[in-house]
Amino acid sequence: MKKKTDRCLILCAGELSPKALDAVKEPEDCYIIAADGGYLHARRLGLRPDLILGDFDSAPKPQNTQVELFPAEKDDTDCMLAVKEGIARGCRDFVILGGTGGRLDHTVANIQTLEYLCDRGLGNLLADARHRITVLRDGALTVPRFTGYLSVFALSPRAEGVTLRGMKYPLEEAVLTRSFPLGVSNQITAEEGTVLVRQGTLLVIAALEPEEEEG
Amino acid sequence: MKKKTDRCLILCAGELSPKALDAVKEPEDCYIIAADGGYLHARRLGLRPDLILGDFDSAPKPQNTQVELFPAEKDDTDCMLAVKEGIARGCRDFVILGGTGGRLDHTVANIQTLEYLCDRGLGNLLADARHRITVLRDGALTVPRFTGYLSVFALSPRAEGVTLRGMKYPLEEAVLTRSFPLGVSNQITAEEGTVLVRQGTLLVIAALEPEEEEG
Repeated sequence: MKKKTDRCLILCAGELSPKALDAVKEPEDCYIIAADGGYLHARRLGLRPDLILGDFDSAPKPQNTQVELFPAEKDDTDCMLAVKEGIARGCRDFVILGGTGGRLDHTVANIQTLEYLCDRGLGNLLADARHRITVLRDGALTVPRFTGYLSVFALSPRAEGVTLRGMKYPLEEAVLTRSFPLGVSNQITAEEGTVLVRQGTLLVIAALEPEEEEG
Repeated sequence: MKKKTDRCLILCAGELSPKALDAVKEPEDCYIIAADGGYLHARRLGLRPDLILGDFDSAPKPQNTQVELFPAEKDDTDCMLAVKEGIARGCRDFVILGGTGGRLDHTVANIQTLEYLCDRGLGNLLADARHRITVLRDGALTVPRFTGYLSVFALSPRAEGVTLRGMKYPLEEAVLTRSFPLGVSNQITAEEGTVLVRQGTLLVIAALEPEEEEG
């Protein structure tokens, strides 16, 4: 199946509400990889995976799609295996759904998988109904205004030249460290917010709140 | 109120099931700090805080306890403020409850607060009904066997000399990096498991599973 884009959508086996799909532009145009039980999400969401992989130790092996079997005991998580397959097929921009909720160790592993993608200069987003999570290194990110909170954390020991614009609590050329969570619960007040980091790696988390009223 | 120990129990405003209290030995002997809405958890759990702090922008100000007011707009999170108050009062060992669930940015901020404690050589544990989370630097940790998974992540760019003993997937003098989540979903098979890191910082997450059957 030929896809129009180099975008990869990975469906993992964690919690996956249909609302999480709002994070993906034209999901059917993505190269879709279902990681293990994630193919059950695909079916439920009406998405057709291009590749299904996993060990199928906890879910029946699906039919009628390209399936790669992996041993249950392996070094990589299912999500990391999916990312490596997507990279091998030339994808440059990754969205991971179903990678949060449930066990926190899975969520942390998936955040580290974002950093693996960032290391390689590839687009990376982990999303669920409520969160949009990305890792940014030595660069800038603009985020359209939304109802909710934007938080910025250092993943590298120091993140230098951190600048936040268009936000309730602006920052200019600040230094963040991993043990100083200064950047929590900001809000975008302009049309869009900008996150810049001159040197270092940031974890950026948008936490959406349901819209209650204007203003 | 004079306490027998230098242990500090911090109750935050996140999800807090009574089962989370299993993580704390003799909670009534701890110096108990309720961070903002966390005092409602204290009341529900039958615990009497020694100190209540916060901005009370989302919960009524409690009566009959030492209360310190903090402005709603501040650099530290409520949990970090509570930790700093506990350190100022001489506490050496911290357990944080009510710091997970809900918004992922809060959970990440609280994990960074663990690292703040670890930086200062202080005991640190973030717990909920299902998880026990701690940060370990240049040292060793023993964990009694439990039903569930033990995962180990590098927080520093490299963690050298990582050794896991008494586990299904042992490691000896391995190197972990933040973008290589090798240590996910291990299991303790001996009476107790040991996690060692010669140089670097690890995030250790125990995810408890309900016991279903023996073996």
